[in-house]
Amino acid sequence: MADALAKLSETPDGLTCTYFSPAHKAAAAQLRDVMHAAGLAVEIDAVGNVVGRYAAADAAAETLIVGSHYDTVVNAGRYDGRLGILTGIVVAEHLIRAGRRLPFHLDVAGFAEEEGVRFAAPYLGSSAIAGRFDESMLQRRDRSGTSLEAVLREAGTDLATIRKLKRPPQSLRGYLEVHIEQGPVLLEHALPLGIVTSIAGSARFAVTIEGMAGHAGTVPMALRHDAAAAAAEIVLAVEKRCALAPTLVGTVGQLAVPHGAINVIPGRCDLSLDVRAVDDPTRDAAVADILTAVESIAERRGVSAKVVEIARHGAVPCAAPMQTALAQAIGRAGFEAFRLPSGAGHDGEMFAGLTDVGMLFVRCGNGGISHSPRETVTAADADVAARVLLDVLTHLP
Amino acid sequence: MADALAKLSETPDGLTCTYFSPAHKAAAAQLRDVMHAAGLAVEIDAVGNVVGRYAAADAAAETLIVGSHYDTVVNAGRYDGRLGILTGIVVAEHLIRAGRRLPFHLDVAGFAEEEGVRFAAPYLGSSAIAGRFDESMLQRRDRSGTSLEAVLREAGTDLATIRKLKRPPQSLRGYLEVHIEQGPVLLEHALPLGIVTSIAGSARFAVTIEGMAGHAGTVPMALRHDAAAAAAEIVLAVEKRCALAPTLVGTVGQLAVPHGAINVIPGRCDLSLDVRAVDDPTRDAAVADILTAVESIAERRGVSAKVVEIARHGAVPCAAPMQTALAQAIGRAGFEAFRLPSGAGHDGEMFAGLTDVGMLFVRCGNGGISHSPRETVTAADADVAARVLLDVLTHLP
Repeated sequence: MADALAKLSETPDGLTCTYFSPAHKAAAAQLRDVMHAAGLAVEIDAVGNVVGRYAAADAAAETLIVGSHYDTVVNAGRYDGRLGILTGIVVAEHLIRAGRRLPFHLDVAGFAEEEGVRFAAPYLGSSAIAGRFDESMLQRRDRSGTSLEAVLREAGTDLATIRKLKRPPQSLRGYLEVHIEQGPVLLEHALPLGIVTSIAGSARFAVTIEGMAGHAGTVPMALRHDAAAAAAEIVLAVEKRCALAPTLVGTVGQLAVPHGAINVIPGRCDLSLDVRAVDDPTRDAAVADILTAVESIAERRGVSAKVVEIARHGAVPCAAPMQTALAQAIGRAGFEAFRLPSGAGHDGEMFAGLTDVGMLFVRCGNGGISHSPRETVTAADADVAARVLLDVLTHLP
Repeated sequence: MADALAKLSETPDGLTCTYFSPAHKAAAAQLRDVMHAAGLAVEIDAVGNVVGRYAAADAAAETLIVGSHYDTVVNAGRYDGRLGILTGIVVAEHLIRAGRRLPFHLDVAGFAEEEGVRFAAPYLGSSAIAGRFDESMLQRRDRSGTSLEAVLREAGTDLATIRKLKRPPQSLRGYLEVHIEQGPVLLEHALPLGIVTSIAGSARFAVTIEGMAGHAGTVPMALRHDAAAAAAEIVLAVEKRCALAPTLVGTVGQLAVPHGAINVIPGRCDLSLDVRAVDDPTRDAAVADILTAVESIAERRGVSAKVVEIARHGAVPCAAPMQTALAQAIGRAGFEAFRLPSGAGHDGEMFAGLTDVGMLFVRCGNGGISHSPRETVTAADADVAARVLLDVLTHLP
């Protein structure tokens, strides 16, 4: 199923499926068809979430959401996000075929957007369902200058309906997400599954350095205000500072001299900054040090540095009852109930504080690589994950 | 005249005029019209050079070329290259109106391409006239994947005619170029003009770093193979090494993580490298040290670095008789005959060894900035340059 979805890409080679691209719309249609074939009642909502319901006998019952996202990063792996949706579908299909009703509605949710690639608007899909959709995101623009609002309007979306996607917290039984670990920990411990204790907080910034452009042959080194050289110092400062604590990571994922030419001293350089840690004080201390370093690098080099905070999410603990339910199911499957934090952000963050959130990690191969075509899981591990999810759903009170 | 030419741009704001863009073709037509109005016999040749002739009385006379280029870098100034063509035109017009024939044909040449922006094929125009056109450049492609050959064919160029543009060296009396200094030296010395002693040699490289992409939240700092961090170290190594000798400069003008995302560890980073010095041994020693640094940075970080040499031009001395003629004319204009090397490359390099090459630098304002919209010259300095060029032409034997 993941292979079939991965054929829908914006690029001829590899997998790229960003928000509301033709490939993304085709992926939504494919998910809708797969959910329908599994026996779920499916709708694609105003922001592109594909939600399939296996209703409880009692229409007034609460709803348990099993979800993850189907958008991808550029040149992505095929399991990030999608494994969680597909696992939800096969478990639902198993229950439907067996005629086994649950004491709550089971909604399998394929969220339209989590990665934030096209509009720097992460958690777009899950935030709408959680009632935390940030309307200021509608004005964000993609690289071609098109706003999120324009894209939604062109797709025929009535923007007023986005608010109506909110699920009242009292209607929710909980939120469960199966996701690949995207790291090497389970691989090192030789375990197929892990229970997430908390999701690391992240802080994201866009940094623009403005120096002075000039001719590459005529401006002596000592008189330069090279924006790319300042950016290079920042990249290395981020790397050095974030090596100082074990759960801390810092990444400059975007780095570019706009319209750079081989014979022109860079007058501008743009970079992104993403800093995460399992606890907020560790992260915030690193961010403060990095921003101080940016300032002092800019001052020393006679360039300006504009820093815009794009997002800041606190670390989110997973609910103790969900951790316990997952631990018991994993134990019944014959494995150690191993707990670990998540360094990556996940849709579950949007539901924290509204309902009980649980997350089940599945072991990654290839050293734990993710956001890469080399991302992989084994069929055997995916199978254990589905069995554990089924067990949890049928044992939840 | 420079203001009128600068209105022809690929961008709504600023000036960008790269090879065979619509703006570039319009600039060629405008130059042709201006040359025609000045009384010159004009042709636009097979590669887009605009050449206007004021013929000597004797059809068998030698030819003196006064030339420079009309293409620009991205977001350029309006005098780089163009000042030299326009100065040639006004001097020719003055001679024509006065009915004052020279003992040689005077060809005012507007070269179509010198900057190498679109096809990384610098000196395209002057190399054709000098008979040094490199046919392997025809296979170079622009960012959209179109080859130089395809662009020329679409413009109706018979490729076989490019070779015929070559001027036999024995037919040439010399080559003179007026150009803005593109640096701060004349400004510091409070002089309008300078005589170029030699043109610095340059070496250019394209560097591709391949590391390992990964999730920005889940891969510990110590396990990363971040291509952008390796590139950042290279940028700083270039800067440090090139600060060690006075006439040495090194520039990373292009720097980019292709398809970078805020939450993905860069798996690839591309950068350009340009190293120049007034003497070749200084430059070559720096290049050798930088390439060694690239290798050791890549090895230490577990990334690969592919380095492709794009160009290497030796330093080119200007001809002593031309330097003397310029010095005498500058003296007659009442200024000091100040000599300086050129850190930038110029079309004159193509004619060195074929005929006597002379170059006259004109003072830049704004601290000597070039390759920037802030590039400027004063009308008074341009006037002195035109008078000195006229004086040199009428005093050459």
